[in-house]
Amino acid sequence: MKIKHIVTIGGGTGTFVVLSGLKKYPVNLSAVVSMADDGGSTGVLRDEYGVLPPGDIRRALVALSESSETLRDLFTYRFEDGGLQGHNFGNLFLSTLEKVTGDFTSAVREASTLLSINGEVVPVTLDNVRLHARLVNGKVIKGQTRIDIPKDLNRAKIESVWLEPQGRINPSARRVIHSADLIIIGPGDLYGSVIPNLLVRGVPEAIKSSKAKKIYIGNTMTKHGETNDFKAEDFLKEIEKYLGEGVLDYALFNKKKPQPALAARYRKEGAHYVDISNLDLKSKKPKILTADLIDTGKLVRHSPKKLAETLLALFSQR
Amino acid sequence: MKIKHIVTIGGGTGTFVVLSGLKKYPVNLSAVVSMADDGGSTGVLRDEYGVLPPGDIRRALVALSESSETLRDLFTYRFEDGGLQGHNFGNLFLSTLEKVTGDFTSAVREASTLLSINGEVVPVTLDNVRLHARLVNGKVIKGQTRIDIPKDLNRAKIESVWLEPQGRINPSARRVIHSADLIIIGPGDLYGSVIPNLLVRGVPEAIKSSKAKKIYIGNTMTKHGETNDFKAEDFLKEIEKYLGEGVLDYALFNKKKPQPALAARYRKEGAHYVDISNLDLKSKKPKILTADLIDTGKLVRHSPKKLAETLLALFSQR
Repeated sequence: MKIKHIVTIGGGTGTFVVLSGLKKYPVNLSAVVSMADDGGSTGVLRDEYGVLPPGDIRRALVALSESSETLRDLFTYRFEDGGLQGHNFGNLFLSTLEKVTGDFTSAVREASTLLSINGEVVPVTLDNVRLHARLVNGKVIKGQTRIDIPKDLNRAKIESVWLEPQGRINPSARRVIHSADLIIIGPGDLYGSVIPNLLVRGVPEAIKSSKAKKIYIGNTMTKHGETNDFKAEDFLKEIEKYLGEGVLDYALFNKKKPQPALAARYRKEGAHYVDISNLDLKSKKPKILTADLIDTGKLVRHSPKKLAETLLALFSQR
Repeated sequence: MKIKHIVTIGGGTGTFVVLSGLKKYPVNLSAVVSMADDGGSTGVLRDEYGVLPPGDIRRALVALSESSETLRDLFTYRFEDGGLQGHNFGNLFLSTLEKVTGDFTSAVREASTLLSINGEVVPVTLDNVRLHARLVNGKVIKGQTRIDIPKDLNRAKIESVWLEPQGRINPSARRVIHSADLIIIGPGDLYGSVIPNLLVRGVPEAIKSSKAKKIYIGNTMTKHGETNDFKAEDFLKEIEKYLGEGVLDYALFNKKKPQPALAARYRKEGAHYVDISNLDLKSKKPKILTADLIDTGKLVRHSPKKLAETLLALFSQR
């Protein structure tokens, strides 16, 4: 099977990494991006200016940009002090464009041209949605930031998440999902970046009805307060809970453990290597795959190169 | 004489108007722009981020831009409320680019490319200068804003202005001044936008030694607190005080009085039609010219079209 059009579904750094790796190959890339972010610079802009969240869109735009390094640096620039402290310039750019043009789609289109995007960045919904979570103790938490970065690190586990309002799928997101040959879900913060896409009305249905091969890429490390003690199969179970069972063709996990010194540093922040030892390797749908997917650096992150090579090798064989 | 390369010297709205008119003609345009602005959004950025003043540069860039209307609107957008209140997006753009690239020249170059500038925008100096004024009563006032928009509207007249530090001419400004066929000084706030260019070390000398024809365009209205009771010859005298006598070839003034209702509105703000009746029409250097140069609108402003037509007719005859 020849992969011509790849759609990624996610947000944050995970999507940035996948796109950065794949953009070096002659494939058509579309990034469907979560619109649940409400923290930091993005949160301030949403609250003060009533705009849609620019943060995840901006990261995907920079990943696919073929413009000058200066322009990409500009879009990534964060003010360290002064009245603009904490603001990211790319966020300001998108939000101001939204005010000037009157709609987020035009803002993303204009920014895409400016940044010479190779591909397409598509907000999963154009509705002003907010992420909510119910914990196993019954408590309800509002806002992606509070769910993602809990104040109380020992708080109860997340039972379920939803959007208010639920939001309808952006027609452009449906279009790219339907024309895809391969849909890549994740990696990224499970509840903060990946699942918020699947919560939008019409998204699971669009993925299901697409003829594309569908693969989930699991996380390498757990996240304290969000996915404590999660094993590989727990990540997969949560994705299938919101996407539907029997939709995914593959699930891909990292099998390379981080170096002990690095793992120790993560452990201090309550993050652990995601255990893959209990994965059901005999499962047919999804078929479970493991590979060395990480970079050896200061962070345990998926390697754009290894990830792209693994994915393309997998699908060019079939 | 064939005019191929025109250099404007000024800042603010005056320069915007001249450039907007001239850019419709097949001439090469360079805008040498004042770097003394320290008010509003520009002032905050200078104080908080130690950047050079973006405001006047931004106006000239927008005037010469051939990009989409959206992009020009983006650069002109001003935040009305929230944490970014009072900031102009174009200013944020230039200042962030200056932080990212590490120097103002690169920032202006990058923004010029992005905005598809037809011509060149050149800061008159790259030194961090501040405008100062001494009043006839001996009082010293620091800062372009305080000089331009005085709190006490009945304050004493301005005796002299200077920059601290004086600043050296930007080599690019010298280059364009030397290669010009026509140098247009003004219109614009006399002490706030036009003269600050002439205060920079090397600027009067560069203008003097250029083979270009040199014309000063006088203001149409006085400005309360800055040029009260100024007549046309007073504007010219002040320009010559800082530029040197015998340098200008022409001085052009508007001869069309604004409509009575409009003039009455201006009168309330202490601004009056600049009287041209005492101009020395027999003067040879500069030769004194008058023409209908204003638009009939809500403001008494030079008409980009009339100004450009008058200038080009003048020099294509010679």
